[in-house]
Amino acid sequence: MKLFDLSSYLSRKRDSIEAALKAWVDPTAHENHRLAEAMAYSLMAGGKRMRPVLCIAAAESVGGGEKDALPGACAVEMIHTYSLIHDDLPAMDDDTLRRGKPTCHVAFDEATAVLAGDALLTLAFEVLATYGLSRGDRPGKTLEVIRILSHAAGPSGMVRGQMEDMAAQGASCHLNQLRHMHALKTGALIVASVEIGAILGGGSEDRIHKLKHYAHELGLAFQIIDDVLNVEGDPRIMGKATGTDSFKKKSTYPALMGVEASKALAKACIDSALHALKDFDTKAEPLRAIAAYVLERKR
Amino acid sequence: MKLFDLSSYLSRKRDSIEAALKAWVDPTAHENHRLAEAMAYSLMAGGKRMRPVLCIAAAESVGGGEKDALPGACAVEMIHTYSLIHDDLPAMDDDTLRRGKPTCHVAFDEATAVLAGDALLTLAFEVLATYGLSRGDRPGKTLEVIRILSHAAGPSGMVRGQMEDMAAQGASCHLNQLRHMHALKTGALIVASVEIGAILGGGSEDRIHKLKHYAHELGLAFQIIDDVLNVEGDPRIMGKATGTDSFKKKSTYPALMGVEASKALAKACIDSALHALKDFDTKAEPLRAIAAYVLERKR
Repeated sequence: MKLFDLSSYLSRKRDSIEAALKAWVDPTAHENHRLAEAMAYSLMAGGKRMRPVLCIAAAESVGGGEKDALPGACAVEMIHTYSLIHDDLPAMDDDTLRRGKPTCHVAFDEATAVLAGDALLTLAFEVLATYGLSRGDRPGKTLEVIRILSHAAGPSGMVRGQMEDMAAQGASCHLNQLRHMHALKTGALIVASVEIGAILGGGSEDRIHKLKHYAHELGLAFQIIDDVLNVEGDPRIMGKATGTDSFKKKSTYPALMGVEASKALAKACIDSALHALKDFDTKAEPLRAIAAYVLERKR
Repeated sequence: MKLFDLSSYLSRKRDSIEAALKAWVDPTAHENHRLAEAMAYSLMAGGKRMRPVLCIAAAESVGGGEKDALPGACAVEMIHTYSLIHDDLPAMDDDTLRRGKPTCHVAFDEATAVLAGDALLTLAFEVLATYGLSRGDRPGKTLEVIRILSHAAGPSGMVRGQMEDMAAQGASCHLNQLRHMHALKTGALIVASVEIGAILGGGSEDRIHKLKHYAHELGLAFQIIDDVLNVEGDPRIMGKATGTDSFKKKSTYPALMGVEASKALAKACIDSALHALKDFDTKAEPLRAIAAYVLERKR
């Protein structure tokens, strides 16, 4: 059996996603250069593109094509990027570096960073609505996607998770509180990315349900491994400092249950994610390979 | 002929709008009290409710009902409120008072204000999508509303206007630049409010076109009168300080063309707005009365 080549798959999907994103935030096509530049600066700064890749892979797993899912992929990446820009603000996490580059408010200024985030969040919905209107056959499907994305990103999902994360800083928290906070802060958008891809790809309710379970477990494993890498990762491979969580006394999985138990929990999550895909055929190979990668990744 | 009673109309519509808004941001119904409290603090702080009233009045002018337009009305008011919260931030206009109350970041804190704004912006789209899905007959119509609102609020509309306003501060600007900046910063959302109401109310393309013209002229007149009131308004009636634009050396209509010429321009805009409604029947009386009010208002 030929092994699935994840690295080549990711590279191809990232190219498609970046071309589609670029068409929406090309600074040379905007009259207001500074705003468009700030949006493009953060949106085109690389990154894993995990959410949009998951969106496309989910669409493909139910028999849809990349093109069906691309608007959803762009929208989730725009929302992810806006959340990073606002989380990095001085009033929030006050981070000056992201992916080795100055954060948006450092490269531009704080007001521009607030507005670039606002603009990307708003643009995500324009992308989806524009796409839905161009496809006469699926307005209801696009509305459902917009409802899922706004719910996952808003005050019942990601924004609430960020509020709870800030409230928890400095305070000790229980494992269940930590799971709950991550389920909102990062999990909701990951689950939405997969669900949106599955809907745009034409998946049945049963398939969508299974894919959401996959995404929930994957998101949790991703977060646990993030915490583990902060303890024992190699800063040279990661491209960023490690040990920062412990220094900040952050509540993390390794801090609450130890490194080995954290790894075992992540493994159990990935097993559960893969189990959710057991009825899926080879079109789900990218999703399976991503799950395996989340567990093995070094950065 | 019985004169149309605008004051009673506004009072009834505001009651409907506030009841509908409250259902979406009731802090007692949210688990995260602080975020919901900050959202409700700013959203339920009163204000003229000009945009949502225009949205409903536009729907009624083409034969639609209040209920058809209420989700659109809530969405535009949520977006207007988010823009006020973010504009008031220390990194932007750094305002500590709004409508006589401490601004959101003063009453809560800066991070909460950023997130409350983000949450209201996102919730606006959830409101529309939820409504569109509950009405099987009009998914395409709701998608069109979402496209219009996201376009008017995003990097091609309101957010861009705020960028240009900040860039213009301290610099002298021409009348056309001022018009252009206001058309984006405040005009785009006012026009969208009316257009959305007209669509949800079932207006024809011709009616929608005329209503957009009305809204464009009304928005311009509103801004000119705002500037005039800052020069010669009564601080006791306005509930806020006057003369602040001149103190800040802001480019305004009175500064660029004088108070009397500004008033004449506002009058011409309102005449043009009323002219756009000449084929409309008595169902457009609220829109006509609002236009007259914009010219006469003292606060």
